[in-house]
Order: sequence, then C-alpha cells, then structure tokens
Amino acid sequence: MATALIVLAAGRGTRMNSDLPKVLHRLGGVPMLAHALAAGRALEPERTVVVTGHEAEMVEAALAKLDDEALSARQEEQLGTGHAVMQARAALNGFEGDAVVLYGDTPFITPETLERLVEARRAADVVVLGFEPADPARYGRLVTEGDDLLRITEYKDADAATRAIGLCNSGVVAADAATLFSLLDEVGNDNASGEYYLTDIVSVARARGLSARVVRCDEAETLGINSRAELAAAEAAFQARARASALEDGVTLAAPETVFFSLHTAIGRDTVIEPNVVFGPDVTIESGVTIRAFSHLEGCHVSRGSTIGPFARLRPGAELSEGVHIGNFVEVKNAQVAEGAKINHLTYIGDADIGARSNIGAGTVTCNYDGVFKHRTTIGADAFIGSSTMLVAPVSLGDGAMTGSGSVITSDVPAGDLAIGRARQVNKPGLARRLFEKLRAQKAARTKGDA
Amino acid sequence: MATALIVLAAGRGTRMNSDLPKVLHRLGGVPMLAHALAAGRALEPERTVVVTGHEAEMVEAALAKLDDEALSARQEEQLGTGHAVMQARAALNGFEGDAVVLYGDTPFITPETLERLVEARRAADVVVLGFEPADPARYGRLVTEGDDLLRITEYKDADAATRAIGLCNSGVVAADAATLFSLLDEVGNDNASGEYYLTDIVSVARARGLSARVVRCDEAETLGINSRAELAAAEAAFQARARASALEDGVTLAAPETVFFSLHTAIGRDTVIEPNVVFGPDVTIESGVTIRAFSHLEGCHVSRGSTIGPFARLRPGAELSEGVHIGNFVEVKNAQVAEGAKINHLTYIGDADIGARSNIGAGTVTCNYDGVFKHRTTIGADAFIGSSTMLVAPVSLGDGAMTGSGSVITSDVPAGDLAIGRARQVNKPGLARRLFEKLRAQKAARTKGDA
Amino acid sequence: MATALIVLAAGRGTRMNSDLPKVLHRLGGVPMLAHALAAGRALEPERTVVVTGHEAEMVEAALAKLDDEALSARQEEQLGTGHAVMQARAALNGFEGDAVVLYGDTPFITPETLERLVEARRAADVVVLGFEPADPARYGRLVTEGDDLLRITEYKDADAATRAIGLCNSGVVAADAATLFSLLDEVGNDNASGEYYLTDIVSVARARGLSARVVRCDEAETLGINSRAELAAAEAAFQARARASALEDGVTLAAPETVFFSLHTAIGRDTVIEPNVVFGPDVTIESGVTIRAFSHLEGCHVSRGSTIGPFARLRPGAELSEGVHIGNFVEVKNAQVAEGAKINHLTYIGDADIGARSNIGAGTVTCNYDGVFKHRTTIGADAFIGSSTMLVAPVSLGDGAMTGSGSVITSDVPAGDLAIGRARQVNKPGLARRLFEKLRAQKAARTKGDA
Repeated sequence: MATALIVLAAGRGTRMNSDLPKVLHRLGGVPMLAHALAAGRALEPERTVVVTGHEAEMVEAALAKLDDEALSARQEEQLGTGHAVMQARAALNGFEGDAVVLYGDTPFITPETLERLVEARRAADVVVLGFEPADPARYGRLVTEGDDLLRITEYKDADAATRAIGLCNSGVVAADAATLFSLLDEVGNDNASGEYYLTDIVSVARARGLSARVVRCDEAETLGINSRAELAAAEAAFQARARASALEDGVTLAAPETVFFSLHTAIGRDTVIEPNVVFGPDVTIESGVTIRAFSHLEGCHVSRGSTIGPFARLRPGAELSEGVHIGNFVEVKNAQVAEGAKINHLTYIGDADIGARSNIGAGTVTCNYDGVFKHRTTIGADAFIGSSTMLVAPVSLGDGAMTGSGSVITSDVPAGDLAIGRARQVNKPGLARRLFEKLRAQKAARTKGDA
Repeated sequence: MATALIVLAAGRGTRMNSDLPKVLHRLGGVPMLAHALAAGRALEPERTVVVTGHEAEMVEAALAKLDDEALSARQEEQLGTGHAVMQARAALNGFEGDAVVLYGDTPFITPETLERLVEARRAADVVVLGFEPADPARYGRLVTEGDDLLRITEYKDADAATRAIGLCNSGVVAADAATLFSLLDEVGNDNASGEYYLTDIVSVARARGLSARVVRCDEAETLGINSRAELAAAEAAFQARARASALEDGVTLAAPETVFFSLHTAIGRDTVIEPNVVFGPDVTIESGVTIRAFSHLEGCHVSRGSTIGPFARLRPGAELSEGVHIGNFVEVKNAQVAEGAKINHLTYIGDADIGARSNIGAGTVTCNYDGVFKHRTTIGADAFIGSSTMLVAPVSLGDGAMTGSGSVITSDVPAGDLAIGRARQVNKPGLARRLFEKLRAQKAARTKGDA
Repeated sequence: MATALIVLAAGRGTRMNSDLPKVLHRLGGVPMLAHALAAGRALEPERTVVVTGHEAEMVEAALAKLDDEALSARQEEQLGTGHAVMQARAALNGFEGDAVVLYGDTPFITPETLERLVEARRAADVVVLGFEPADPARYGRLVTEGDDLLRITEYKDADAATRAIGLCNSGVVAADAATLFSLLDEVGNDNASGEYYLTDIVSVARARGLSARVVRCDEAETLGINSRAELAAAEAAFQARARASALEDGVTLAAPETVFFSLHTAIGRDTVIEPNVVFGPDVTIESGVTIRAFSHLEGCHVSRGSTIGPFARLRPGAELSEGVHIGNFVEVKNAQVAEGAKINHLTYIGDADIGARSNIGAGTVTCNYDGVFKHRTTIGADAFIGSSTMLVAPVSLGDGAMTGSGSVITSDVPAGDLAIGRARQVNKPGLARRLFEKLRAQKAARTKGDA
C-alpha cells in the first residue's frame, strides 16, 4: 500500500518567543522538522506534504534543503489541525493510498511506531496513535470500547468522566487519503475554540459506519515542543538516547554527558571519544578512531585509526583517510587528507588535498581566499611543510617536496624540491639590550611625568 | 525613607580551607560579596558600609573595584554579628533612615525580598527576614506570637520547645539606623558562645516596647556558603537560575547545563548559544547572535547578527559591531571591530580598530607589545589582511588596503595600497630529496650504533 | 607478614563489544587494571602477579608500562577463577606469606579495605571480602554462622534459602599463599558452569578444619565493569569522588561536574579550576594556580602562582616554574619554562627551555622536527621573542636576546643581541585597489557567464 506523509508545520509557536518558526529551531543539530521527516521516511512515502503557515517562506526554504522531493502546502489562516490537513489535499491529488499525519514539533515518534500504525490500517479505516501519560493533564482523550475507538474529545470539551480516561491523543493519524479528506469535509468548528479539529474525523467516521482503532506508543515518543525550555529538555532526551546507542554500538564515551551528537551521527566500534566533543550534522567516523577532548566536527568523514584533537575542528568537506593525525588548534575544511598525514598544531587547511604521510608544520596556512575567489592547494605524498609556511593558492607541491619554515609559497614546487623564501637572519650585536634600556628609560620618564 | 546597607564580610571562613577571604571567592564570575551588594543596590541605598575583618585589606581592595562609593569599617576582633554591625556606626554618622543588614556570604537574597523587608519596616520598628527550611537543623529560631516577633534564639541556646519551631532566622534585619545602634548598645555577650548576637536586638526592642515583625522568604534565598562544596552547590544554583532566565528571555541554549553565566550577563532574544560556552563578567550580547561551541567571552559587547566561535575568545574591551564573524582559535582584546568584519582563523587582535567589512587572514597578529609599552593598530574599511601578516604597532592601514601574506608591516599603509614584505620564493631542485636521504642515513647510522 | 597480589585480568569481556581487552579500557585516564594495582600497592606487595589470557600480549605490554616489577602468568583456557589463580602458582614459587586475589575489572576496592582484609588474615586462614548490596541479584552468597564463613555459593547453584541471604561475595580473597594453592588443588568443576570456582576454597578449607572469615566493605567498592555503559558509570563514580576530594583539599572548582581528573592527579590548595578542564595522567599542580576554562593537561607540572588557559594545552614533559603565564591556543610539550615567563597566544613550544621572565610573542613556533629528528630550542632569561618567530632547532638564544617579529631564526643569538630576518616592507600605491577591481570584474564576468 502506498503511503503519503502530511507533516503539519504551520504553527506560530508563540511560547518560543522567537522570530524563527518553531519547526526550524534546532534539535540534534538539525531543524526540529527534520526529525518527523526522518521518521516518516521509514515508511518510504510516495509523497510528503509539509503544511506551512507562519513564516511559510522560511519553512519552505529549509524544507527544500532537508528533502528536495517534499511538497509544501500553505495554510493561510490557522483554523485548526483539521483545516491544516485539508490544505494538503491538492498536493495529494491523484495519490491513492494511506495518509499519515505527523507534526513538525513532535520529533520523537519512532519509525517502528509508524510501521505499526500503518500495519493497523489494514484492519481499520482510521488509526490514531494514543499513549498513556503519567499525567494526562490537558491532552485530548481517546474514548474506546474494547478495541474500537469511538471518538476523540479535546480536554476543554470533555466532561469529568471523559477526563478520567488515561488514554490520550498524540494527534498522529493514519487513514486512506481519500477517506481522510472526505471525513474532514464533514468536520465542523462548533466547539470551544471555534477550530476544525482533525480529531473529529473519528466521530464522523463512526457515524458513517467506518471503523477506528488505537495504536499505542510510549509517552516519550509524543513529546511536543512549545518553549525553549521544552526544546532544551527535548535536546537532552535526544542526546541521552544517542549516547546510550553509541555505547551499545561499542563506542567508548569517557563522559557521555559531555558529548553532543546530531541526528544520524555515525560512529564506528572501538572509537574512543574523550570528554567535550561536539558533532554537528553529517559526520561519519569509522572504527578505531580517537577523538580527543574539546573537538568540534561537522560535515566530515574520519577513517579508521585516525586521531583528532584535542582542540581540533573539522568542518564540512573534511575527508580524512586512515591513520591521519589532526592535532591542537587545527582547522580543516573542504579538504582531502590522505592516509597517515599529520597536521598537528595551529594550522588552517582549507580547500586542499594533502598527500599520504605528509607532515604539515605548525602555523601553516592555506591562503585559499583572495578576497573574492577561493582557490585550491595540492600537496603530494611524503611532503614536509615547514612551520608557518603560507601556501598561496592556487598552488601545487609535488611528492616529497619540502618548504622552509616561514616561507610564502606562491608558485608550484616540483616533486623532491625544497622551496624557500625568507630573508637571511642578521644578529645586531647588543641592540636588544640598547632597545630595552631605551624603552625602560621612556617608561621611567613617563612614570615620573605622571607623578 | 533613606536606606543604608550594612554588609558583614569580616568572617574567616575557616571551612573554606583557603588563604583567600571567603567573601572574595567567586560565584557567577564575581566575588561572592558582589551578589549581596547587587541585591542591596535595588534599595538605592544612600550609604553602603561593608564590615571587614579577616584579611581586611584584600576585601577592601576588592570592594573598591566592585563599588567605589561603598565605605568599609573594620572589625578588629570577631566578637559576633552584633559587634560587627556596631563597627558600621561611625561610617553611618549623620545618616538618618533605615539600616538593612546583609551578609557577604549569603548571595541569593533577592531585590524583591529586600523591598518587602523595607516595606514592612513602615509598620514595625525591627524587621527580621525569616524562612522555613525543609530541615531547620541548627538555625536560630524565630519565636512569634501572631504577627509579632518576640525574640530570636540561637540553636545552641534553645530549649526543646524552641527547637521545635520551624521558622528560622536568616540574619537579615532592617531597623531605623539610630534605633539599631541604640538596641545594640544594650546587647550583651552572656551566652554559650560569649558573642554579641545581632539577633538579641529583638528581645531588647520588645523590652523597650518596640515592635518586631517577620518577613518570610524562600529557603533558597538564605543559602549561606561555608565550604568549597557549598560554594560549588551555590554556583550550580546560580547557573540553574541564569539558564532558566535566559531560556525565558528567548535565548536558545542547546545544552543549558554546559553554558556558564556571570552575574548580570545580558543576552538578547533569538541569540543561539551552542554547548560549552563560558561568559565571564561584563558581557552583553545583542539579539540574533550565534555563539558557537567552546567559546569564552568576558568584558565584551557583541552586536546583532554576529557569529562567534567555535573556539573563540573575546577578552575585555572587545566591541563587535553588527554582523561580525569571529572564527576558531581567534583572540580579540581591547579592540573595536566594525560591522561585517571577518576574523576567521588563528588570529590575535589586541589594542586595535578593525574597519567595516575588512577581512583578516589566518595567522595574523597585531604585535601590540614591545616588551614595555602597548601600541595600537588601526585598519580601515574593506581592507584585506593577508594570512600571517604581522602588524607591528603602532601602525595604521587605510581603507581598502591590502597586505601580502607573510608580510611584516612596520609602517603605515595608505588607502588602496598593497603592502608587501617578503623574500622571493626559490625552488632548489632535488634538495628536499637529498636532505631527507641524508637525514634518513643519519638515522640508520644511529640506530645501527645503538644496536 | 609478606604479601603477594594476584590480579585476575584474563577475561574476554564480551559485553564490552571491543577488540581491546576489557582491563585496558581507560578509567580515570589510565587502563582500568591500573586501579586494582594502585590499591594493592598500599599493601607493599613483595610480588604482584597478573593473570592474563584474552589478548594476553596486549595486557602484558600495558602491564609493563604500569608496573615494571609486576609478573604475569598466562591462563590459556578460561576455566574459572580458581583455575585462573592457579596459574599464578609458578610466579609465586618461593614466596612465603599472604596472597590477596584482586580483579582487573573491579577498580574501586580501597587500600583501607585491603588493609582490613590482610589484618583479618591474622585471625583466620581464609578471608573473603563481602558486601551487602541494595539488590543482591545474581551475586554469589556468603553463608555464615556468627563470625564464621561456612561456604560461598554461586547464585546459579544456590537454593531459595541461600538466595535469601543478603551478604554477597566480592571475589576478593586473602589466604596464606601455600594454603591457597593447596586448597585450590582440591577444588573441582562439578557445578552448573563446569568451572573451577575460587569461591570453593572456603568449603574445602572448612572441611580441613581451617577457619574462614568475612570482611565487609561498601557495595560501591565492589563495582565490576562489564559493558561500556558500566564503564561510563564507573568513570562518573571515579570523577565524583575525585572532585569531592579536590574540594575538600581546598581546591576551587567552579563547576565540578565539568572537570575531569585522572588517577592520582595532584592539585594544591587555593588552586582555582574554571569549567571544562581535563587532566590526563601524571599531572601535578601546586597551590595558588589558576587553570582557566577549556584547558587540557597531561604529564606536566605547574608551579605555584601560574596561570594556564583558557584554551591551553600542556603535554607530557611541560614543567612550569612559579608565576608562569600560558595563554590561549598555546601548546607546550617537553619543555622547561622558568619563573615568570609568558607564552600568551597561539604558540607551539616543544622540546625547549624558556628562561625566566622571557616573553614569547603570538604565533611563535619552535620548529623542533626536521622530518626525521627532534631538536631542542634554548632561550635565556629576559628574552623577547617577537610575534611569529620561527625558532629552527637546534638553536639557542642568550639572556635578554630579542627577535624581530616574523623572523626565521636558524642560528644562535648571543645575549643582548637583536636577531632579525625579514624582507623590507614595500607599499605599492593603488595596487590593492586595482587588484580588487580586477577580481571583482572577473567575478561579474563569471556570474554573467553562469546566467
């Protein structure tokens, strides 16, 4: 059965106290919205429609980066969840199959739960995801009879008996798409909020003689985010799961609580991660890597047996082969570093290829930017770059090339050549002594003048 | 009604196990004493008197930096809180109004509580701040009758019935200054400790027919600090409040527990703070700023839309205009950085002015120190400083000036000029190969020699 | 009475999901095995025998670094703890005295507990360390009668009555060495696992009329490590104790939960440690030192009154005298830094001696590596090294020597001399302007071409 996702992402998120739309606030290094999309992807949806509203352009621009096949549909007025889902009707024109409604601010529904939801759709016309929270509070209640779901009642419209029910509504729904929209056609807004509730499709379905069922999940999956404090709590929950998962996968985390993962950070077995490491999005680390304290990685790949940090930064496009050493106060960006190369101290490598076993001296800079364009530096294998070498790109150094420390390299260096560009050292006898004496005399004079 | 503060800061703090006086240990980035002073400032005190004793000179020197209008009074011998307050008498000579007694080691009394205390003074001669702790333990007890406070009894002088009272003494007191000192004149030291207790003024006042009342506050406000473990706990409490407050103000903290604030750190709405950021004292951040992981800021101002870090350090006097980029392994001190300027990698900017939209290359250093004096570097707008440029101050570069990478700039560069100072690159054919061969031969020979 | 340690370290540790033997996983900065060895060292053992098995070569190589006097004994097959202890028999040939059996994966037994264990051996032939866990779960049970230990029963061999016993077996045992091996000779493997249990020596001893006693310790001491999650929990427990101990010793930790210690990190009174500091192995810090945020130290010594960081890295062999300043983005390795020297910004000092009160400019590098050999840099007292000076080792600078910023120093600089090696600055009038115009024109052309 084909599946379509409808992800609601139109809300203002007033309690976030932010100009940024709620679903674009970051969780696990990526916009919150990405989590619902990623979970939904497990259903291999034929179409994905994101319903936007508040700051719709910003959300649509972000969506294009997250999933370039996803469609968006505008909800111009915020008239309730039922109304929001209806906006996806045109985008699903011609689609035949199940529609699953997800929420951009509810990031923790698991793929397994969604699979159970879709599975249950085979036996019922409408399936609703429910949960039994420790404190049901103001959630909508699911009124059931045996396995059947009779109706969903919003808390503010519920009587005392209904409020006593422990089974609550997550808002996640699955139904045949055509049925879903047909049911929504009958939903009205005659309720306390004057809104069109998606939840009312259950009563409408029952009135038509259609069946409705509940699939249950853990309360933790249904966590919604409405304020920055809730976002911080959700981030903590995300990190706790990511850390536990890494430990189970055979990764050593000396202090798990100080390591921050992004959605889909991939780390190999027997990799050791010291305290205080941050993984931004799109990082893959092979096995047997050591990532030392105070390291920051994003958009990079590190191959087995490499050592990173402490105080290292790998930026997008850093691709490290096996056995590479990246040391302290080193930044690598958009660069291929071949096996066994060493970049150990105070270095900026950007837009570069570094050959196997080459050694890059402390203070080296690939001067990749001329103020307008970026250029590339290429270094061969077994090269030795002296300390504080300025590599003015575009420039290329051959295998086994060497540069003298303090040299500015503006033209290519053939393989096996030594390139040097520096002034000869001259010692001026006694001059340091005389300079210090003069400066100290000036200082004494000034101090006297101040007195 | 005029108000005066008397802040007791004379204690030895033996359990701190420190040569530093207790009230100078830091909390929220500033000496603990600063917290009571800051809370008291809400009362707009006409005079502030800090009573010093143990290591009085150190405390007085610190006080001069914290509040240059505050007075200090020495307590030469530690004869109790009543004796300590009496030492403020001379400094309050001629003052008419209420005196409020605070404690340098009790940092969390809120301004709101102090305002309630002073407000209550209109209806009673003596007002004492009380609290009901979860565990009353060894606190002094407040003996009341209806709204009236009859007396305060120190725990060690209390009988079982008095010990059963749950309302305890915070030590914070408000009274007309003249009345306060007059009451203290009658307080004796005939008790278990042989000390003059400030608390005894209540009994003396009642005996004179004066009225005494209790104002209540949360136990958390009365937290006193007596050991480094308690200091660490107080720091944790301070940070928890500062983090919650930032979240409420619309600041995003991905991992609040890893962000450290100082007293009065000010951060604008929609600023995003990644994990592991430390704010020292006197930092103001406008809205829409991004502070990336592993950044350290103190005494600086960051304007809206700027991006800082990761691994950036802003030191006192760093003033960043809008849209500035400060990247990794960059230190900025005592420098104005104009809008849109970029300092992205491995740079030290100290005692400098950087013009709008200027780009500072990796490895650049403002050589501001000649061993005796500090000098200033000035860079105009739209300048392009090549990587590893040494700017030997005092030196000035005009708008649109450019320097070649690896240049040492010792004299001014006019607007639009390119300054360059470097030796020509020479490639020595095959020399790298021969040098490596020689070194490896030496190594082989040594290894053989070792065998 | 002479003592010998037998430390069992042969297990596979399957649940670690690792190629590294379990006892080599790090805890407190050192291999887990080092903790049991360190505790045992308090008994001043005459011999220490580590029983290895899984990945025996790796464990033995690590052992050689941890304790070069320790012996190892191979257990080729994993036939139970009794069998493991038997493998130590040959290594203890000729030894007379008590043998104490410890475990490489049980790191928290305290020296005090081991002393009580050995003390108890004077009154009993066999002494077993027991504990009363909150949840006895599947531990072996100690069956006692008054003070006497009758037998130890493994959980899987225990009946319900025995499982109801709260006193459990830690596995740690002390007995006269000859007696221990003699008892083990009688232990069989007729049990649920088909293994030789060390624990069965108690029944054998009782059958021979020998006495057995229990010494009790806290459950926390007996914590064993079987998975990476347990390792992380053990690390947290280790750190919690180390932090509490530092606070008690008069060290200030602003945020204890962010400071990571190693086994035996030694820190003096009134040293202040800011948030996010990592101490690797073998660090000693004197009193009155300030270690600022984001610092990483290993194998180094810091003398009183020095200031380190933020963002500083001290590597093995960094020896700092009194009043040294190490600033941000500075790495120091295998170097003596004399009193009052300052290395404040973006510097690599490796294999060097820095004289008293010398000032090392930003961006300075000791070029200690020629691609094959490492060489040493020596700087005298009161020297002034200009920013971005390359010190090409081996090289020596005298007292009061000075280098011009941007100089490459390849030969020695006598005391009081100024060494300089740089090209003269030339300003090319208007060239920056023309270069930018040209680049922008190119960009405009390319953009047009793209359109």
